[in-house]
This record gives sequence, structure tokens and C-alpha cells, in this order.
Amino acid sequence: ILSTDKMTTAHCDAVNDDKQRKSQGPITDSDPMRLRMEAFIKDLQNRIVNEIQQLDGRGEFTRTTWERKEGGEGITCVLSEGKVFEKAGVGISIVYGQLPKAAVEQMRHDRGKDIEAEGSVPFFAAGISLVMHPHNPNAPTVHMNYRYFEIENPDGTPKLSWFGGGADLTPSYLYEEDAVHFHQTLKDGCDKFNPNYYKDFKQWCDKYFFIKHRGEARGIGGIFFDDLDDKNKENVFSFIKEMGNRFLPSYVPIIEKRKNMRYTDEMKEWQQIRRGRYVEFNLVQDRGTKFGLNTPGARIEAILMTMPLTARWEYMHEPALKSREADLIEVLKVPRDWIPLV
Amino acid sequence: ILSTDKMTTAHCDAVNDDKQRKSQGPITDSDPMRLRMEAFIKDLQNRIVNEIQQLDGRGEFTRTTWERKEGGEGITCVLSEGKVFEKAGVGISIVYGQLPKAAVEQMRHDRGKDIEAEGSVPFFAAGISLVMHPHNPNAPTVHMNYRYFEIENPDGTPKLSWFGGGADLTPSYLYEEDAVHFHQTLKDGCDKFNPNYYKDFKQWCDKYFFIKHRGEARGIGGIFFDDLDDKNKENVFSFIKEMGNRFLPSYVPIIEKRKNMRYTDEMKEWQQIRRGRYVEFNLVQDRGTKFGLNTPGARIEAILMTMPLTARWEYMHEPALKSREADLIEVLKVPRDWIPLV
Repeated sequence: ILSTDKMTTAHCDAVNDDKQRKSQGPITDSDPMRLRMEAFIKDLQNRIVNEIQQLDGRGEFTRTTWERKEGGEGITCVLSEGKVFEKAGVGISIVYGQLPKAAVEQMRHDRGKDIEAEGSVPFFAAGISLVMHPHNPNAPTVHMNYRYFEIENPDGTPKLSWFGGGADLTPSYLYEEDAVHFHQTLKDGCDKFNPNYYKDFKQWCDKYFFIKHRGEARGIGGIFFDDLDDKNKENVFSFIKEMGNRFLPSYVPIIEKRKNMRYTDEMKEWQQIRRGRYVEFNLVQDRGTKFGLNTPGARIEAILMTMPLTARWEYMHEPALKSREADLIEVLKVPRDWIPLV
Repeated sequence: ILSTDKMTTAHCDAVNDDKQRKSQGPITDSDPMRLRMEAFIKDLQNRIVNEIQQLDGRGEFTRTTWERKEGGEGITCVLSEGKVFEKAGVGISIVYGQLPKAAVEQMRHDRGKDIEAEGSVPFFAAGISLVMHPHNPNAPTVHMNYRYFEIENPDGTPKLSWFGGGADLTPSYLYEEDAVHFHQTLKDGCDKFNPNYYKDFKQWCDKYFFIKHRGEARGIGGIFFDDLDDKNKENVFSFIKEMGNRFLPSYVPIIEKRKNMRYTDEMKEWQQIRRGRYVEFNLVQDRGTKFGLNTPGARIEAILMTMPLTARWEYMHEPALKSREADLIEVLKVPRDWIPLV
């Protein structure tokens, strides 16, 4: 559908400049942010896929690459039914496009209106997105996403640009030490850049991943931020790289600890019910998913790679009083500060 | 949350008048439509629950009744893990309320704006809704819903009222004779009332249940209509009763035929993937579900009883060429007229 859109000069300039530059050799720090972000997420994707495949020990990631006629490409890596992971997807996408109005509105939670779109606007987006669902109910699901957006000027240079992203953990059974480890790893990264980042982004995460119709959070949180467009763009990009690089140390040690723990059929069933809530959040609330579903010509399999392999909806399921399942719900109803917020 | 709303005189009048009338004895044809619709859907729910329980032969419906402080009640009947049905839910709800703006916009696909809402409006809604998911992949899922809405005048009488509803079938494997039987049963009912009803509502159904992001219909259709507010309200109500009563004959014979057919693990897996699409439609597109999720104080378990017990998302699953699975997809991509439309 996008191919029938009228391509603007801005759009074509951006695509052609970037193509030409990439053909000339490796990207350096003096290149435009579009290309630097693309290089970073491609490298990060490879590092994550390699380490997670090693951790799984049996499953292999399938790698699908796709190109968009209008400019841009994607690489979707999915591991299904491995030894440790039921399903793990790591995708990157680089998109040069004309953004329809519906998608623009999903784009910025606060400043979508500033864009003064009439019909559609030329934009660029590059992001890495991952979700990993382990088999073992003691091992948590994880999600991470870092992204960069640009709205173009008539000459193809960025008119408006910003970063967004975050990472959050969704256990079926609560291990406080895991929650603390995950949050501490993220906090240490945040603290290098701004003393308020962790506190602000932790609270933003609790708010963003709250499933309104259930009155509970999706998981035990992490960080989330959007529209980060500090005047010092270099600094923000360094922050993004720092946080992206922290994904593996934030998650892998938890999985190492949990992947071989024993579990019962009842625990597996509870995990499946929690997966149902994951699906509800993603399809009903998640802005990223809505953005994808509203983007004409989007690759639906890449957008929905975040879905669990299986999920379950039991009517009126209530955890037993004082059970481990009830402990989790308690923490989801009132998000906890795993590390004291100053 | 609703309980903190300012209750208007219109709202209280409607609730009190109806309560008083019900305490005086059986509802007759000379009573207000609110009460007649309530009586009809309660009776229909009982008849369907009884026959489906008998058909299942093992499972029993749990029956949950609930009341709303502000007026109204609901009865949710759910059978889980029966012999024939994985999950079957039949719910009715009668709601007197103040409708927030977000919900008003979901309410009428065309005339939501006519309501001139400032803040919220007093309304009445009564409906029956059912979804049944059989175990056997040869047996189709079915959905049915009939509903009545009123927006109240200041004195509690209806200012605007209309009916909506429909029924549709969602097989995992296509049996053309089942599709024809289902459609013919509905068509025969429609034809008693208006020669255009079947054709119009069949096409409306194909359009409504089309999963946009997948480019395929949810199932093989049926009928769907909304905002039916013919001047002859009696006639429309008779039509609603006719169609509600046709649910059992449209569906039970199909289940009788399919419930004991043999199937393989691969067929069960395909059914689970189709269930995933069902979840996608319900959470991403269905107006009824969105209406529920946006209604403050709504009973979430009742709204989501339509979800399958289990569902599956496999990355890039493609049915083999010329397989039975591919046959289904073909019919979903381009909805077929099971009975020639004149």
C-alpha cells in the first residue's frame, strides 16, 4: 500500500543519501544519526541472538530479512521451541516512509499534534525490539525496545528527532532477587547519565505497562521512556547504547538461575494464564503494536513475533489465598520500588 | 467508578419504574421494551445453556449472577473443559448507566455523534452474548449476540433506541455443508421479515469480522447488523426473537456431526493457531469488547469469557499448498456467498 503513496523529495533524499553513504564504507561517529543507530541496532541484534542461542543450547534462531521498496529493511530473528525458550524474537527494522495520520497519533504520547500533518509526513524510524518467553514458569519473560524517530525537512535532514525505549520483566512467579538484579542493572546504566533517569523511567514504566482493564501491571517493571530529545543528541545516543548493551547482563543471569528449576503442571498452567495477560496488554494497549498494526504494508509477522507461543484464558481464575500466585498478583496491583527511589 | 457518577433523574426513573413493574408479575407484550427484551434474553439464555449442557454430556455451566448498584444485573454461564466444549460462555447483561464519552463513540458505528453527549448520557443496554469453542478441530467455534440500547429522555422514557446483533461461525477446517446449513438457517429467519435482510446483513458480517491486519475474515461469516431502529419497533423485536431462537438449530446439528470425528495433533495445533486469530480480532477490533473494556466498573471476566481457553502464535506459520488448511485460508481471504445472493 505504501508503494502507491506519493513519495516526497524529502523522503527520496533521505533514502538515497543513506544508501550512497553505506556503499562507501563503515559508519563512523561523524555520520548522520540515522546511520549510526542502524549500525548499532544491527550489531546489538547479532550479539543478543548469539548469546541467547548459546544459552538455549538447542534452539536456533531463524533469520528473515526483508526490504521495503520505499526504503528500509528489517531483520527478524525468531527461536521457537528451544530447550530453554518457548519463543524468543529479536527484530530490528529500519523504515523510511510516509506516515499516515492514524499512525502519527500513536507516535508521540504528548507531541503528536506538533507534527502538523496534513495527510501524511515523511519519517524515518529505526528500532530494535525483543521479547523472550522461557518454558520454565520460574523464569520470567522479558521485553526490550530501543528506537529512534525522525520527521524530515524538505531537504531530507531531520526536522524533529527523538529516542525512546525501555526494558521490563514479566515473571509468573516472583523472585525478589531477580527483580532487584534486573532493576539494579538498569539503574546503574541510568545513573551514569542523569540522576533522575532511573526514578523517572521506572515510574513511567509502571504506568505504561499497567493493564487498565485488569487493574494490574503486566510485570514487575523496569524502565520506559519516550520522546527523549535532549539538546545533546550525542549524550542521548550514548545512553541508548549503554542501555541496549545492558540487556544481556540484566537478563541472562536470571535465566541461568531459573531455567532448570522443577515445576508442576499447575505452575505451567498459571504461566499460561499470565501469558494471556501479556497478549491482552500487547493487543489492547501497547502503542508500539498499534503503531505497527496501523502502518500500511507493515510486516505483521514481525510485529506479532512478541506474542507468546501459547496462552490461556480461564474464566474467573483466582489464585488461592497466600499462594505464590497471590504473591505475584499483590506486587502487580501495587507496583513496588525494588530499589529505594531517592 | 460508576457509583461516583452523578445519577440523573432520567436514570433513576428508569431503574425504579422497571423494578416496580417486575415486582408486580410476569412481563407481557404491553410492557416497555426494556423489560420485554430482558425477559426474552433470560429465557433464551436458559434454553441455550440447557441444550448445550445436554449436548456436551459431561461439562456443567457455572452460573454467576451479579448486580450493579446503579441498576442492572448480569448472569454469566460458563462451561469449561467439557467433553465436547473446551469453553462455552453464554452471558446476559442488563445495564442502567451513565455512559462515558469514550464508550459512546464505540456505541454506534454511524450515529455516535448524534447523541450530543456532554460528559456522559443516561442509557440502558440489554444483551445476550455467547461464544462456544469445541475441542474437536473439525467442529467450528460459534458466536452470537443480540442487544438492545436506549438513550433516555429526562423522564426516563426512551429518546433513541435500537437493536443490533448477529451470529457467525469460525471453523478451523472447512465443511461447505456446515457453512451452507448455518447460513440457510439464518437466511430463512431473515426472509420472514425483509427480503433484503439476509443479503445486507451477510455482507455486513463479512465486513465487520474482517481482521484488517491479517487481510482475512475471522470465519465463514453469518449475519451482523447494528442500529436497527425501524419505525415499527414491534417488528424489529420479533425479528430479534426469531434470530435468537434460531441459534440452536443453526449450530447444534453441526456439532452433532463433528464432535466425534478423528483428528491428529497437527489438526489440533492448526486449531490453536486459528484461536490466536480469534483473540486478535476480539482484542484489536471488536466494538463490543472495546465497549466493555471502556465501561468503568464493567465485569471484565464477563467481557472476556469469549476468549478461547487456549491459543497459539507460531511465527510465520504457512499452511502447505493445497492442504485443507490452505483451503480454509482461501475462503477467509475472499468471503464466499454460501447461498447465492439475489
